[in-house]
Amino acid sequence: MLLKTLYLSLDPYMRGRMNDAASYAEPVAIGGVMTAGTVCEVIDSNLEGYSVGDVVLAGSGWQDYALSDGEAVRKLDPSAGPLSYALGVLGMPGFTAYTGLLQIGQPKAGETVVVAAASGAVGSVVGQIAKLKGCRVVGVAGSSEKCAYVTDDLGFDTCLNYKDADFAARLASACPDGIDVYFENVGGAVFQAVLPLLNVWARVPLCGLIAHYNATSLPDGPDKAPLLMRNLLTKRITIRGFIIFDHYADFPVFFEEMSGWLRDGSVRYREDMVESLVAAPEAFMGMLEGRNFGKLVVKVAERSD
Amino acid sequence: MLLKTLYLSLDPYMRGRMNDAASYAEPVAIGGVMTAGTVCEVIDSNLEGYSVGDVVLAGSGWQDYALSDGEAVRKLDPSAGPLSYALGVLGMPGFTAYTGLLQIGQPKAGETVVVAAASGAVGSVVGQIAKLKGCRVVGVAGSSEKCAYVTDDLGFDTCLNYKDADFAARLASACPDGIDVYFENVGGAVFQAVLPLLNVWARVPLCGLIAHYNATSLPDGPDKAPLLMRNLLTKRITIRGFIIFDHYADFPVFFEEMSGWLRDGSVRYREDMVESLVAAPEAFMGMLEGRNFGKLVVKVAERSD
Repeated sequence: MLLKTLYLSLDPYMRGRMNDAASYAEPVAIGGVMTAGTVCEVIDSNLEGYSVGDVVLAGSGWQDYALSDGEAVRKLDPSAGPLSYALGVLGMPGFTAYTGLLQIGQPKAGETVVVAAASGAVGSVVGQIAKLKGCRVVGVAGSSEKCAYVTDDLGFDTCLNYKDADFAARLASACPDGIDVYFENVGGAVFQAVLPLLNVWARVPLCGLIAHYNATSLPDGPDKAPLLMRNLLTKRITIRGFIIFDHYADFPVFFEEMSGWLRDGSVRYREDMVESLVAAPEAFMGMLEGRNFGKLVVKVAERSD
Repeated sequence: MLLKTLYLSLDPYMRGRMNDAASYAEPVAIGGVMTAGTVCEVIDSNLEGYSVGDVVLAGSGWQDYALSDGEAVRKLDPSAGPLSYALGVLGMPGFTAYTGLLQIGQPKAGETVVVAAASGAVGSVVGQIAKLKGCRVVGVAGSSEKCAYVTDDLGFDTCLNYKDADFAARLASACPDGIDVYFENVGGAVFQAVLPLLNVWARVPLCGLIAHYNATSLPDGPDKAPLLMRNLLTKRITIRGFIIFDHYADFPVFFEEMSGWLRDGSVRYREDMVESLVAAPEAFMGMLEGRNFGKLVVKVAERSD
């Protein structure tokens, strides 16, 4: 079948595909099509089960059109809500938040959960689920406007701007009972501020390290790895890396529950929609610096009438 | 009751009690009695259930005699084997090995398990249990004599000397299928060599960092913490610190199973016995440099006839 791209998802993991280095997935070859989740319209089909006009979730990448044999493609129900949500709160980022927080973070009512990139596609969902589980939730974001959104619209208990000079002290004040779960997707200075506040038996689901993705060498010393290990030991902390692609057997359970939360207003969701594929590279670079506000999606084309 | 110390256990964790720094336990005060597990004889008793001549496991520390109200004391059965084993393979170090390997490491038959300090009180038991579970077991120790003991007497598949200049390359050769479980109790250069070999979904139980215990500042750079985190992420690794004192509810299960393994010869055990309490400080310092060979125990006094 021939697919026309309607929406293209931009996500931090793509930065890794641009390095010629061993990772959990092969890098994109020079001249290859850049990886991405997409929402596409079927505009021609010789495949049983797919008809012209169907809308599908695909991984067809940064391009206007793609041929597909149906592998790793899933039909979407256009009546179920905005189609682009399949790239965000009802798709990979939402599933990442759900799985990492609940399976690895195991938040208990009354515990303190800290969420980095709190206004983003993953962080915003992590914090809202943690609130549903009865936790005190502290967000971290990169502007006062984002922080206001995180507390006022998403209902986090508080949100701190990591660019403030006294961020570490503010985080300590915001977490008087320490931190039980830190959902890690940024690394860098935020993690350095979190580490001394982690409680005994804290859990750290680790799904991203955006602060380091552009690094071409290790940071200057001293070597803080032994300090990290010492904290893990004396405070019996669990750090567990996860890649959401390993967990798709559990996707239906997530989809059902998250759809319900969206319908009843328990979870809110914000998109940062960019027009046209041409704008994708600049928007992607901006995301790595935190210039997006909400889940970054490129609107590539209109759906046919 | 009045206790006379027969055997005193020397263990790496004691180094942490000598730092005036926050940890999982209070440091020993200047002029206080240094912490230690002990095997003691009751030489006078006003406590119900304890009679003169009973032998108990106590935590009475580096001293010849101690008063006890019976708290945190357990009676030992002198007919069950060498009394000092209660400080090693049948006590805290053995239980550390058992719990960390089985609960956190979760070794599966055919997997590769790497064990640091492989001839020591904990490592020797970790590796032997991993062999019982059908794993390929690679030990790391600090001399060719220790390595020979680890392979010939304990039955590890191989053992490498971390002091060899090409240790990292040898470790890579010894682990052609990578490393699934690394039982971490040393840190430092051994961990640096292990990290790039860890497989996807590897587990790292972390119960000690002996290479860092004497450090008064962080090592020079570069800062390897981001490299560690990147490995945890892309390879979905779990690192979990644990302190065995949290797990004593499970001690009876361990004691039963380990006693059986000792009786049927599945697990072998070696002690490095030092005579007299006066020798304890020098022996302790030597242990931090790997000069002991087997579980380090001080014989403080003879049992009464």
